Amino acid sequence: MQDYYAVIMAGGGGTRLWPLSRQSRPKQMLRLGHRRSLFQQAVERLEGLFPPERILVVTAREQAPQLQAQAPHLLPQNFLLEPMPKGTASVVGLAATVLARQNPRSAMAVLTADHLIQNTVHFHRLLRAAYNVAQEGYLVTLGVLPTYPATGYGYIQRGEQLGEQDGLPFYRVIRFKEKPDEVTARAMIEAGGFDWNSGMFIWRVDRILEEFQRWMPDLAAILSRIGEAWGTPEGQATLEHLWPRIHPETIDYGIMERADRVAVLPAEGLGWNDVGSWDSLFEVLPQDEHGNLVLAEETSLLETRGTLLLSEQQGRLIAAIGLEDVVVVDTPDVLLICKRSQAQKVREMVKILSQSGKTHYL
Amino acid sequence: MQDYYAVIMAGGGGTRLWPLSRQSRPKQMLRLGHRRSLFQQAVERLEGLFPPERILVVTAREQAPQLQAQAPHLLPQNFLLEPMPKGTASVVGLAATVLARQNPRSAMAVLTADHLIQNTVHFHRLLRAAYNVAQEGYLVTLGVLPTYPATGYGYIQRGEQLGEQDGLPFYRVIRFKEKPDEVTARAMIEAGGFDWNSGMFIWRVDRILEEFQRWMPDLAAILSRIGEAWGTPEGQATLEHLWPRIHPETIDYGIMERADRVAVLPAEGLGWNDVGSWDSLFEVLPQDEHGNLVLAEETSLLETRGTLLLSEQQGRLIAAIGLEDVVVVDTPDVLLICKRSQAQKVREMVKILSQSGKTHYL
Repeated sequence: MQDYYAVIMAGGGGTRLWPLSRQSRPKQMLRLGHRRSLFQQAVERLEGLFPPERILVVTAREQAPQLQAQAPHLLPQNFLLEPMPKGTASVVGLAATVLARQNPRSAMAVLTADHLIQNTVHFHRLLRAAYNVAQEGYLVTLGVLPTYPATGYGYIQRGEQLGEQDGLPFYRVIRFKEKPDEVTARAMIEAGGFDWNSGMFIWRVDRILEEFQRWMPDLAAILSRIGEAWGTPEGQATLEHLWPRIHPETIDYGIMERADRVAVLPAEGLGWNDVGSWDSLFEVLPQDEHGNLVLAEETSLLETRGTLLLSEQQGRLIAAIGLEDVVVVDTPDVLLICKRSQAQKVREMVKILSQSGKTHYL
Repeated sequence: MQDYYAVIMAGGGGTRLWPLSRQSRPKQMLRLGHRRSLFQQAVERLEGLFPPERILVVTAREQAPQLQAQAPHLLPQNFLLEPMPKGTASVVGLAATVLARQNPRSAMAVLTADHLIQNTVHFHRLLRAAYNVAQEGYLVTLGVLPTYPATGYGYIQRGEQLGEQDGLPFYRVIRFKEKPDEVTARAMIEAGGFDWNSGMFIWRVDRILEEFQRWMPDLAAILSRIGEAWGTPEGQATLEHLWPRIHPETIDYGIMERADRVAVLPAEGLGWNDVGSWDSLFEVLPQDEHGNLVLAEETSLLETRGTLLLSEQQGRLIAAIGLEDVVVVDTPDVLLICKRSQAQKVREMVKILSQSGKTHYL
């Protein structure tokens, strides 16, 4: 698998973990009780499968210095800088273009920088199997077997089984489904044959570039011109000159929902979580005997259950009395207190603050 | 009424409004959304009835500088300093002893420094009427007509009507009742004839000293020796020498529950509140249309009701989502989040912190 490259998408902002995540400190920089940030975990997770020279990180210019400092063993030239955010389609396209010039036989695994994956052994097994499926020309998506009717994830509907790799079956994809409402989610779980869309993809670079030419010809043309200049002294200037012309689009909508030969490789027991809201932390972090999640230096709890207490401030005491299912996030300039069941409304709060000009809190 | 003196008891600590109230900032120093502290309000409330030279403040040595700074028009010699806290009986006894030497015909109104009284006009009317009742030799307590079955107040049971002053009836006191449980409180409200004990008393100085001699002879003897030295160069030294020998006692238990000729003057519409818990602030401060009490510079609320947001920190944003009946008190070193219905457990929290050696938060 010496033609296999990992492409980590690390350009996201992430407002759903506000006020811990900020414009100046995106979600992938958060540690959330771990020793390492989500980005560092995403890089370390590749050890033993991808050597540093086969790991690419696509990110925004402002974020690059922080990320490079956190992963000093990666090659500086393997950090690709988006001049501005234009959606995941352009990120994937840029990485594929650069890799195609480097090695025409390359395959790539598109990975996320701000999700959690707890079972690394299984993750490697899946990526190996997906590589083999991709060699057959499929665009492979990693699905995650649903454990509850989540409304915060997109879904993938399986068709017939296409084959098996290392004991792992893979299926034709019938369709992608956007985040559903509660009723639809329940119906899908009951019907069976649906997986969560993990946002991780594996394919041969020549195959994905073929699909770009078919479904997104404008983007393909721009990428082609960037590719021609890449590695020459005009490489970065060409990128910056052409990038603003790109129409923003996601890889899901731009390619995956349209392409033929799309396969899903469902994962079970991967311990995957997109850490998409404060509430989701309760699915992945160990709690005390009352179901509390304490990520603060000094706390005192009285009759408090199912509550997250997170403080970044040293020497500060967080005292809680009679709380049930509450999220408390204490940062130097913003204090958030939120009912857990309404954690998804943090995005709405961020929007309100943005619209009312209080952007210094974002 | 030129023999009428106001004695403000301002020595209390008050842990029930922790973490805003601290050992170094007792409850009477808090502003709680007002322009003036509770102590300043207690002094200003006397304007028009007691000139500054007839206002005494009894307090602890540590608190005196703060209080004097807040009421610079009071006479420095009218601040009486308790060498150490020995309960309200000794406070009242000291004030009575000092006043008796100054003016044997004096009467005194014992007032609190950390309660709220919103109707000053009615307060003056009550204090005038009480003075006249006290001239007949009664020990007068100001009762407050209960508006709900409070468990946080002591109660006074009325006997027969003794008379009327300025249209205000006053009654013989049958007995004082400690803070009741919910069932007892309901029973008293239904039975009628019970008033809340406001902790404010009015009497002639000669009458209360008589009662001290009868019911608390040890204290009376100490007070008598302090009184003899008072005004001489040995005055303060004698006070400090004898004070430690006093056995701590409240005026309620030491005198009021035993004495004869005790009368209650019930107050209606006084707007009195002892501000005895975070929850009680909702009874006295104006709320927004969702019942929220916002005492913070920058807040953003989403689907939040009946919630107190208090922050002392400038430039800090308090964001609340989906909260119902919660108390949030944000100070530089302590953050308290408490269900309103459990606000009385703040004292328990303070006890826990004290016992676990975290006294720097108290």
